[in-house]
Amino acid sequence: MNFGDRVAEAVERKQSCLCVGLDPRIDLLPPEVITGLHPGASGRARAYERFCGGVIDAVAEDAVAVKPQVAFFEALGGVGISALERVCAHARDAGLLVIVDAKRGDIASTAEAYAEAWLHRRDGAPPVGDAITLNAYMGGDSLTPFLATCGDGAGLFILTRTSNPGGADVQEAELGGGELVWERMALLVARWGQEHVGESGLSAVGAVVGATQPDAVARARDLMPHAILLLPGIGAQGGRPDVLHAATATHPAGGLIAPSRSVIYAWRDRGGDWRQGIRTAAAELRRSALAV
Amino acid sequence: MNFGDRVAEAVERKQSCLCVGLDPRIDLLPPEVITGLHPGASGRARAYERFCGGVIDAVAEDAVAVKPQVAFFEALGGVGISALERVCAHARDAGLLVIVDAKRGDIASTAEAYAEAWLHRRDGAPPVGDAITLNAYMGGDSLTPFLATCGDGAGLFILTRTSNPGGADVQEAELGGGELVWERMALLVARWGQEHVGESGLSAVGAVVGATQPDAVARARDLMPHAILLLPGIGAQGGRPDVLHAATATHPAGGLIAPSRSVIYAWRDRGGDWRQGIRTAAAELRRSALAV
Repeated sequence: MNFGDRVAEAVERKQSCLCVGLDPRIDLLPPEVITGLHPGASGRARAYERFCGGVIDAVAEDAVAVKPQVAFFEALGGVGISALERVCAHARDAGLLVIVDAKRGDIASTAEAYAEAWLHRRDGAPPVGDAITLNAYMGGDSLTPFLATCGDGAGLFILTRTSNPGGADVQEAELGGGELVWERMALLVARWGQEHVGESGLSAVGAVVGATQPDAVARARDLMPHAILLLPGIGAQGGRPDVLHAATATHPAGGLIAPSRSVIYAWRDRGGDWRQGIRTAAAELRRSALAV
Repeated sequence: MNFGDRVAEAVERKQSCLCVGLDPRIDLLPPEVITGLHPGASGRARAYERFCGGVIDAVAEDAVAVKPQVAFFEALGGVGISALERVCAHARDAGLLVIVDAKRGDIASTAEAYAEAWLHRRDGAPPVGDAITLNAYMGGDSLTPFLATCGDGAGLFILTRTSNPGGADVQEAELGGGELVWERMALLVARWGQEHVGESGLSAVGAVVGATQPDAVARARDLMPHAILLLPGIGAQGGRPDVLHAATATHPAGGLIAPSRSVIYAWRDRGGDWRQGIRTAAAELRRSALAV
């Protein structure tokens, strides 16, 4: 099934556009998750696995997807990546789509290896993720092995205008004719995704657009009519859920809001049980996004 | 010691500008490396480790650095990354600089986590690599945590004009005024690296420029006077070692040629012992580069 259709189905069924970022940070975890673990990378990996497992169970009803951030696991080396693989399996078992936030980008056999790492394991094991974030600075041929996985139901989210202020350095450089670099990227994304539009009208090739850039979200909607817009930067970075309004203007599953810290660490401000705090924050955000 | 100075010292001492890419691919490995291993990811990881260990020992005299390609290890999941960590430790023990070819790029705490993964382990363990390749489409603030590691001797190589034909899609888009996107990136690299120029005159912040683009190499030299240019695409992709001429015009360590397949799989055409074939190919390439 086409990834665009998979998202459309999940959004319709759950009445939710929520994708929860899994960004485990050792300094921020609930004490009970850390207690009794060995110091060092393997203990931290175990803590990340426990915490993300709790987050997944807490948001499974209100979210359609989770977005694990590879970097936090990668910081722990091999044991961290092994923990991430188990976290992703847990999320898929819980009925959530897994969007691996890896921002990978490379060419030829190297790109193939990255696709294998996250979207189609060679040894017949289930894929770790349903979709991946990619950086396409290296151009169209860097996407070929990833696009090939779209036929098996995988999804891609290409960075266009990112949520950070420094994103402007390259992305907002102005091309001859007044087009910005990220707009050129968006047009390329639209072109790359054209062959992968599902029955829903949504493509398996989506785009990352920072929710901190509401004007860019509206413009991205115009430039990439079939792309699902993945919108990080909600909450802690200052983006607001109402960017969904522009993103979903043409299709109710045309945008996924992707908060991380404001959901998974909600209990730090609210007090009480951490799982309950996460569940409540996810439910509130789902509802406020619906009301947009 | 500043990474630019570390490279300058190694190039001078070894009379070599050779950085050998470690791109293990299961279909191409010598049979003796694979024999007796379990099928599946852990067996493949063990084969990659054996093979890369052999490559490292074979090139240790003629090369100044190795460039392990993370993707091939990442394709095997956690066991692959653990194997890569051991491969990198082996290379450092053999007196080689380790340039981790990861092409990472992300922001804030996520970028910090990537820097921790490859350049400064939080638990006091030695860093996995001496340097890393990065994709700076996300702009200057995405580099901050990486630049912070330069003070401890780490190096960065930022993608500017890559070796693949599709690199033109974004990198050769023309900005108002006629400048190309990759040239803008190069100017940013020069600016980011300015505070990290060592006594040698080389900066810890270098650039990746495809050896398949000789004109771009010459232009890159002008735009980034202090940057070490890492030049992949030699050999199998069609790049020639004489691009070093332009790269080293202002400093003998101003460029590193980075062949992969043409060295590590040289024995497949030449026949004979695989280690000897790799050794000979590395020695020949070192000499032909010196003669440039």
